[in-house]
Amino acid sequence: MTKKILFINPLHTEVFDEEFRAQFERYKSPDTVVDIVSFASGEGPIHLEYNCYEAMVIPELIRTVKKAEEDGYDAAIIGCFYDPALRACREVTEKMVVTAPAEAALHIATTLGESFSILVGRKKWIPEMKENVHKYGFGDKLASFKSLDLGVHDFQKDHEETKRRIRKAANEAIEKDGADVIVLGCTAEFGFFESLQQELGVPVIDASLSPFKYAEFLVEVKQKLSWTHSKKVGYQSPPVHEVKDFKLFETTKI
Amino acid sequence: MTKKILFINPLHTEVFDEEFRAQFERYKSPDTVVDIVSFASGEGPIHLEYNCYEAMVIPELIRTVKKAEEDGYDAAIIGCFYDPALRACREVTEKMVVTAPAEAALHIATTLGESFSILVGRKKWIPEMKENVHKYGFGDKLASFKSLDLGVHDFQKDHEETKRRIRKAANEAIEKDGADVIVLGCTAEFGFFESLQQELGVPVIDASLSPFKYAEFLVEVKQKLSWTHSKKVGYQSPPVHEVKDFKLFETTKI
Amino acid sequence: MTKKILFINPLHTEVFDEEFRAQFERYKSPDTVVDIVSFASGEGPIHLEYNCYEAMVIPELIRTVKKAEEDGYDAAIIGCFYDPALRACREVTEKMVVTAPAEAALHIATTLGESFSILVGRKKWIPEMKENVHKYGFGDKLASFKSLDLGVHDFQKDHEETKRRIRKAANEAIEKDGADVIVLGCTAEFGFFESLQQELGVPVIDASLSPFKYAEFLVEVKQKLSWTHSKKVGYQSPPVHEVKDFKLFETTKI
Amino acid sequence: MTKKILFINPLHTEVFDEEFRAQFERYKSPDTVVDIVSFASGEGPIHLEYNCYEAMVIPELIRTVKKAEEDGYDAAIIGCFYDPALRACREVTEKMVVTAPAEAALHIATTLGESFSILVGRKKWIPEMKENVHKYGFGDKLASFKSLDLGVHDFQKDHEETKRRIRKAANEAIEKDGADVIVLGCTAEFGFFESLQQELGVPVIDASLSPFKYAEFLVEVKQKLSWTHSKKVGYQSPPVHEVKDFKLFETTKI
Amino acid sequence: MTKKILFINPLHTEVFDEEFRAQFERYKSPDTVVDIVSFASGEGPIHLEYNCYEAMVIPELIRTVKKAEEDGYDAAIIGCFYDPALRACREVTEKMVVTAPAEAALHIATTLGESFSILVGRKKWIPEMKENVHKYGFGDKLASFKSLDLGVHDFQKDHEETKRRIRKAANEAIEKDGADVIVLGCTAEFGFFESLQQELGVPVIDASLSPFKYAEFLVEVKQKLSWTHSKKVGYQSPPVHEVKDFKLFETTKI
Amino acid sequence: MTKKILFINPLHTEVFDEEFRAQFERYKSPDTVVDIVSFASGEGPIHLEYNCYEAMVIPELIRTVKKAEEDGYDAAIIGCFYDPALRACREVTEKMVVTAPAEAALHIATTLGESFSILVGRKKWIPEMKENVHKYGFGDKLASFKSLDLGVHDFQKDHEETKRRIRKAANEAIEKDGADVIVLGCTAEFGFFESLQQELGVPVIDASLSPFKYAEFLVEVKQKLSWTHSKKVGYQSPPVHEVKDFKLFETTKI
Repeated sequence: MTKKILFINPLHTEVFDEEFRAQFERYKSPDTVVDIVSFASGEGPIHLEYNCYEAMVIPELIRTVKKAEEDGYDAAIIGCFYDPALRACREVTEKMVVTAPAEAALHIATTLGESFSILVGRKKWIPEMKENVHKYGFGDKLASFKSLDLGVHDFQKDHEETKRRIRKAANEAIEKDGADVIVLGCTAEFGFFESLQQELGVPVIDASLSPFKYAEFLVEVKQKLSWTHSKKVGYQSPPVHEVKDFKLFETTKI
Repeated sequence: MTKKILFINPLHTEVFDEEFRAQFERYKSPDTVVDIVSFASGEGPIHLEYNCYEAMVIPELIRTVKKAEEDGYDAAIIGCFYDPALRACREVTEKMVVTAPAEAALHIATTLGESFSILVGRKKWIPEMKENVHKYGFGDKLASFKSLDLGVHDFQKDHEETKRRIRKAANEAIEKDGADVIVLGCTAEFGFFESLQQELGVPVIDASLSPFKYAEFLVEVKQKLSWTHSKKVGYQSPPVHEVKDFKLFETTKI
Repeated sequence: MTKKILFINPLHTEVFDEEFRAQFERYKSPDTVVDIVSFASGEGPIHLEYNCYEAMVIPELIRTVKKAEEDGYDAAIIGCFYDPALRACREVTEKMVVTAPAEAALHIATTLGESFSILVGRKKWIPEMKENVHKYGFGDKLASFKSLDLGVHDFQKDHEETKRRIRKAANEAIEKDGADVIVLGCTAEFGFFESLQQELGVPVIDASLSPFKYAEFLVEVKQKLSWTHSKKVGYQSPPVHEVKDFKLFETTKI
Repeated sequence: MTKKILFINPLHTEVFDEEFRAQFERYKSPDTVVDIVSFASGEGPIHLEYNCYEAMVIPELIRTVKKAEEDGYDAAIIGCFYDPALRACREVTEKMVVTAPAEAALHIATTLGESFSILVGRKKWIPEMKENVHKYGFGDKLASFKSLDLGVHDFQKDHEETKRRIRKAANEAIEKDGADVIVLGCTAEFGFFESLQQELGVPVIDASLSPFKYAEFLVEVKQKLSWTHSKKVGYQSPPVHEVKDFKLFETTKI
Repeated sequence: MTKKILFINPLHTEVFDEEFRAQFERYKSPDTVVDIVSFASGEGPIHLEYNCYEAMVIPELIRTVKKAEEDGYDAAIIGCFYDPALRACREVTEKMVVTAPAEAALHIATTLGESFSILVGRKKWIPEMKENVHKYGFGDKLASFKSLDLGVHDFQKDHEETKRRIRKAANEAIEKDGADVIVLGCTAEFGFFESLQQELGVPVIDASLSPFKYAEFLVEVKQKLSWTHSKKVGYQSPPVHEVKDFKLFETTKI
Repeated sequence: MTKKILFINPLHTEVFDEEFRAQFERYKSPDTVVDIVSFASGEGPIHLEYNCYEAMVIPELIRTVKKAEEDGYDAAIIGCFYDPALRACREVTEKMVVTAPAEAALHIATTLGESFSILVGRKKWIPEMKENVHKYGFGDKLASFKSLDLGVHDFQKDHEETKRRIRKAANEAIEKDGADVIVLGCTAEFGFFESLQQELGVPVIDASLSPFKYAEFLVEVKQKLSWTHSKKVGYQSPPVHEVKDFKLFETTKI
């Protein structure tokens, strides 16, 4: 049964899109069809390191998720490790699965090991991500956060330097903090997990591949067992008439 | 020293504005100047019961906060008990204080009593609010959530009925759940706290007055002692050039 | 790529095996091959309601897991909601994935909803299961445990009666405790999830199908991304020579 | 509306009183009237580094609080960062607000930043203060405790040396522990916060000014909105006749 | 080896002393010598239901503990379920063991069962006791608090009525809250545990006998293994010269 | 009243038995009779560093506990710091007390000090032991785990070297992590506690003596007050007929 998945890179740049596509094609299940979408170049943030950037792209993100469901996707992935607007995206969809990097990476990490460290770009990111770690229930399994002192658009600039920093931070996390799983805390840290996990001898969880594979899994259980987001309480959808009255999914102005 | 405070009612309706204004005028400190702003009628949600409504008004909210600082306000209040975009609003301001209902009400409630109950409109609201209670650190002091089964625009329809429901829920919270402070979990539950707290014999914390008075306090400590939001880690501001490049505060399109 | 999965029903009875097989065949992915194994009839416990029964079957369980890896299985499932010997089973295998019902069901439940209730057979089971809920990190998302007052071998005796009890407990969990996902806390509560979730309007997570699908997922990420149990700290394997010296996997005597 | 506030320095020495007075006069609101009281010199502890010293001054502290209410004060501040007898002091007063340094400093710190470090005089103080941090709900926001290796009466001896130690500890707290707010964990660490926060670029919360300003705030909400300590459960007052029978507020003997 | 134990009933009444003595004589080890002391009748509170009563007797309590060590006691028990001044009492003693009812009862209860309920006299007591339950680490094992609506001096008035209320509350705690151990939350609830535990089929932990037996145990490990309160951090003693200068143990005035 | 205690060294070696016996004889109460039992040499693991070794000896452990009760013992001690099968062992006994090293050591450590560090042999042990620390409720009192990089059978090889490592780790735990009690995290770390605690000035809790003395205490309260493991919920015994049908305590095959 085909699984149609949309990876939303919620940035106003398509600079990473091709590499995401290449990765997903390489690691996908045979019955998965995957598309990538990013937002209009030049119209907004090209990274979401600040919570206010994240906040600003949320309406476009939600509209994209909404449209994805109308276009027949089975799952949408919110491609930012802050997991922006996850609850909102689950509200606006009726049947489509929605997931996000931190949720997926942490569920996987805590199944594979005893405690994990998250390697972020900058210290600035830590408070919001730590809140999410606690929110998902994994505070007791968090060994540490480590900052690589790199911005979102620095990770791919000098691969050897990025690798060197990940390796150093990961080794410290393992040796000093007791981590046995490493989580890469940004979708733009792609291309590193495979060689590094071989070197380090522990799983290194990639931030875009983990929600991608988790999305395949969630679609699978939805298709086979009808297990999907509960609409009873927190993910309840707004009334159709209100959505219309409020022009919720119209782009003009808001 | 004058304290210029802006209460942002992040709804696309001005229906509550006059009553907020009247309240604030009545309870303000002599040196406080308060303004109310709401969003363009007919252009978006008139309540934020759903997380997706909340998400959709965030850009306008952030722009309003940003402009408030430019206009010389000392504090802005985000007038919704979900405390939307609080971190983002603190990022985009340099010196202005920003606070919000749940933050303020819970800090006050936990100083005044041993454990509190939050009276919400609908069960739907509880998961997101519960997350906030835990995020602020008050999970162990939460006696219970109680739903009044009323929407945001129902609270003011039939005052006696609303009062009856608050009274019933509050009494249960006190008698069965051990609460000794009641928190009204929606800014639109205004006009009830005073008579009810007299009746019930416990503090009843109003959701718009609590952030209003807390804002006065935060401005006071900023003006006198320069204690204001730390810009070192989580509330660090984005670089000016990026904000410009990203057209962050421009309304068109987004 | 074929995924060879072994479901270990760690009971000394094959009474449930055929129904497990039928279920798995019905809900499996096309590339999954699944086998069921249970333990020698008449040689030990036919249910694990008591921790001492559970303890007694652990050596046979571990030997079975060990042999499964030798036999080329990609994953083994420990078919009891107490998740017995999960850490031990991950130690004795080199590459095979091992999972179990509570782990799988709770990771799924917390991705699909805001808070879950677990419907157990008897109150006796609650303390050990509650420990596991906390161990996995989901204590804050646990709405309640509900006892159906049925033993492991009672669930399938009178389907209507079992259904009636599940329905009643689930409704209470949803209405009074705020759950939006129901977890069936015993692998023998099979055959109920599908009709009940339709009726109740919330996901009902089956205790044997959830680890089965989770196992497929874990094998998938192992096969595609080499993400598998970390052998660095807690799941480190014992030295081969010791295993031999200690006759660890020999059945005689122990 | 006048706010009459009494700062109780619960030490048997008046050595700090003038400087407290000078500080409060400098930072107070126009409508605040503040008095300082300390205990009879030569009759008891001149610092409360030990819990047994703290315990010994509690009766005099409670009597002072009780008398403050009779004398028409609107608020009393218990001037020790252990927040001694806070619950007892709230019991013995009917309408007067009572607050204390740790309570006030931590509520402010957690509103201004993401995580805080407390700079104490000696390691000995940490266990009791850590208990309070957890009791108030801020355990997850505590970055670290740092000891300056100075006693209560050392802070004011050599200002440059004290400053040097605070600066060093604060920098470590910020750089290594991720703190973005610094809390000075002793009322006698006065006179340092202002220059240090300018230097460090993060708020530095003073242990006597924070409860002083918080007291002004609590009086403000009491005067304007009748929000004051709940007398329903934990802060319920003892019966008048018992208080009399038990000679509770008589000084002789006890 | 003789174990000399002093039970301090920190009340200004000797009304319970004989019954405590009788109890301890009945349940003590052969090598235990036990004495009871209470405070001067007519000079202070005869119960400690209020935190301010508790606070007021603390100096006399500390002096009594100090003197007990001088008089050669091996252990002192602070006979109130609020465990008043436990840290202070451990500071002022060099070698003597000090324990208290909640500490002892909860360590025993959590060793004997999976979760406990505490039966208190009045709701007023709950907040402070709940703080202690969390402080000792047993928050997750607390099934519930139940109030008997009886004051300290009511428990012994009508034995049948008290028993009836304990029975009712305990049954609810067991049936509805899942408790498998009952803790009597007041030293004056003596004389009930034995018959009730036989009736109820679960351990019922008495609030004076539990610290008494725990004290015997702590003396035993001190005498045999030199395991006693650590004086390194939190229980460090104050300097002798200060204690003298501060007139810490002198009764006059304070 | 005689207390008959069995220390079960759940290893297939008697190499430590004589030293355990010597120790217990030295530190026991006069009315205690103590026996040591270990498992058949050459038939299984001689240490339990791996969870799978632990798992493999559990059936023999349970049978030994069961037989101990039949043989009239008042208490059995499970001699491994992982506290294997504690719940199971409490289920299979009717009246006998069962305890184990981590449970006993941690209850004692948290009564004697403010926070403890556990000195383990290898990092591998930490995840399982940390789970137990949290399960018992002492997560907030855990200062740190420290690894000595020694296996179970290394501790007694070179006493001076072992001592040197314990001393170094303990000093770090005290100075850097704030511990004021040291817990030796393996029963085979015997013979060190007494000289080290004198040197270090903090209690050093031995892993076999702590459950031994705790067992004496538990037997004492059982004999005198009938306080023993609650059989109501988690420690409920299995039905006699099932135990027989399941051949639970028969050695052959399982």
